[in-house]
Amino acid sequence: MNPGDVSIRRWRRGAGLAGAADRVAVEEPLEIRVNGRGVAVVMRTPGDDRELAAGFLRTEGVIRSRDDLLDVLVCRDLPEGQAGNVVDALLAPGVTVDFDRLTRHVFSASSCGLCGKTTLDAVVQAFPPVAGTRCFASETIAAWPERLRAAQPAFGATGGVHASALFDAADAFVVAREDVGRHNALDKVIGHALLAGRLPLGGHGLMLSGRISFELVQKALAAGIELVAGMGAPSTLAIDCAERGGIALVGFVREDRFNVYAQSGRVS
Amino acid sequence: MNPGDVSIRRWRRGAGLAGAADRVAVEEPLEIRVNGRGVAVVMRTPGDDRELAAGFLRTEGVIRSRDDLLDVLVCRDLPEGQAGNVVDALLAPGVTVDFDRLTRHVFSASSCGLCGKTTLDAVVQAFPPVAGTRCFASETIAAWPERLRAAQPAFGATGGVHASALFDAADAFVVAREDVGRHNALDKVIGHALLAGRLPLGGHGLMLSGRISFELVQKALAAGIELVAGMGAPSTLAIDCAERGGIALVGFVREDRFNVYAQSGRVS
Repeated sequence: MNPGDVSIRRWRRGAGLAGAADRVAVEEPLEIRVNGRGVAVVMRTPGDDRELAAGFLRTEGVIRSRDDLLDVLVCRDLPEGQAGNVVDALLAPGVTVDFDRLTRHVFSASSCGLCGKTTLDAVVQAFPPVAGTRCFASETIAAWPERLRAAQPAFGATGGVHASALFDAADAFVVAREDVGRHNALDKVIGHALLAGRLPLGGHGLMLSGRISFELVQKALAAGIELVAGMGAPSTLAIDCAERGGIALVGFVREDRFNVYAQSGRVS
Repeated sequence: MNPGDVSIRRWRRGAGLAGAADRVAVEEPLEIRVNGRGVAVVMRTPGDDRELAAGFLRTEGVIRSRDDLLDVLVCRDLPEGQAGNVVDALLAPGVTVDFDRLTRHVFSASSCGLCGKTTLDAVVQAFPPVAGTRCFASETIAAWPERLRAAQPAFGATGGVHASALFDAADAFVVAREDVGRHNALDKVIGHALLAGRLPLGGHGLMLSGRISFELVQKALAAGIELVAGMGAPSTLAIDCAERGGIALVGFVREDRFNVYAQSGRVS
């Protein structure tokens, strides 16, 4: 049985309450370890956990490239209920991590981008602006929501997950990931690209299923993505971060319309 | 000018790109201090920041009641850009906080519920189950989305915020709050009730504008709320947490329908 299969009671006006079967998005904790030490717990939809850990470590600034990472292991020799919910990232020799700083200020963070940074000064992380110069065609962007939906099976079943999809410089589909957490869906996409040695993602565009917060733009910046598009609205700080980071930002994307909020000269 | 007013370029098929004005949800960092020490930064929509801090401290288990809190001050004597973005919670004499544990394991967290807890064992926090026995009428629940919308001005303007609304044991509207972060909107509602000395919220129901994650149910549990309803889907762990916590959980609420996922005997 799918772990998301549940028995519910359904209410309809006129028909009252009746028993029914439903499918919901699976959410479980994942502990991320670095060289054996637990540094964070994120609530996520199980699946692609190695990618999630790799993307998380990149977007939190711990690793810079595929070369910094020997491997990400899924730990299975654990008590009941934890097996498969712990991953261990093994760093390459010479890659150093300040565990105290990491646990205290960054990594206690989970994948929420800014959590854990205990001063306002730490808000804008030291990721360099995106260097690319690709100009994105309007019709290219307008086609992404449909292409994202086509790659998103769980949403149809549960209505309960966020998704991110990555398109390369030639507008070819690269990867899409779903998760109960929007940050996780993006970290999985970025981790997938990192593990494949593709970072930075020059010329790439990103399509998000929901709203566009500052943290999502910051993660895109960490991966060198040139355009971030979302089905929903951006926030003020997301716009500022995109403008400063050289990322084009597009919101409310539909098949026949969208709004450009930052670096608008890069959309034609 | 509203800080969320921005200039954008709007694309429409057939009409192309044209300049336009838009309004977006404001997102800024808030540093939460306890007795002068910074313990967390949350990304939030400015407003009701004292309530946000109070709710955050309650749902993270630092304070238990209004009596634990002398006051929450908004710090204004700060450098440009930080003024109004720092609040300081002054605890009552005798209320002790283990700052090291708090910064390392809970509070580095921001308001994401589980962030920062570095072991799986810490996932289910030690909040007691809700004791209440109220049975909620179906028509009561079905009326909440419209009542939430009526109390939610920013969404209409920006399409970019989450909202939470609280209804008391007699189904009277208590308070609604909006924020770019769904956790913040709920923390503001709970903080409002805490500052008014109303916790625990026996017989109260909560209406959320979006999906229902584990962390939101955990926060409701911390406040003693008896029923959590949302416009969107719950996750598996949200259902488990509600069932164990004695909280009725209702998803996909519309004017003429909804689904009951946990403690279904409490909906009639």
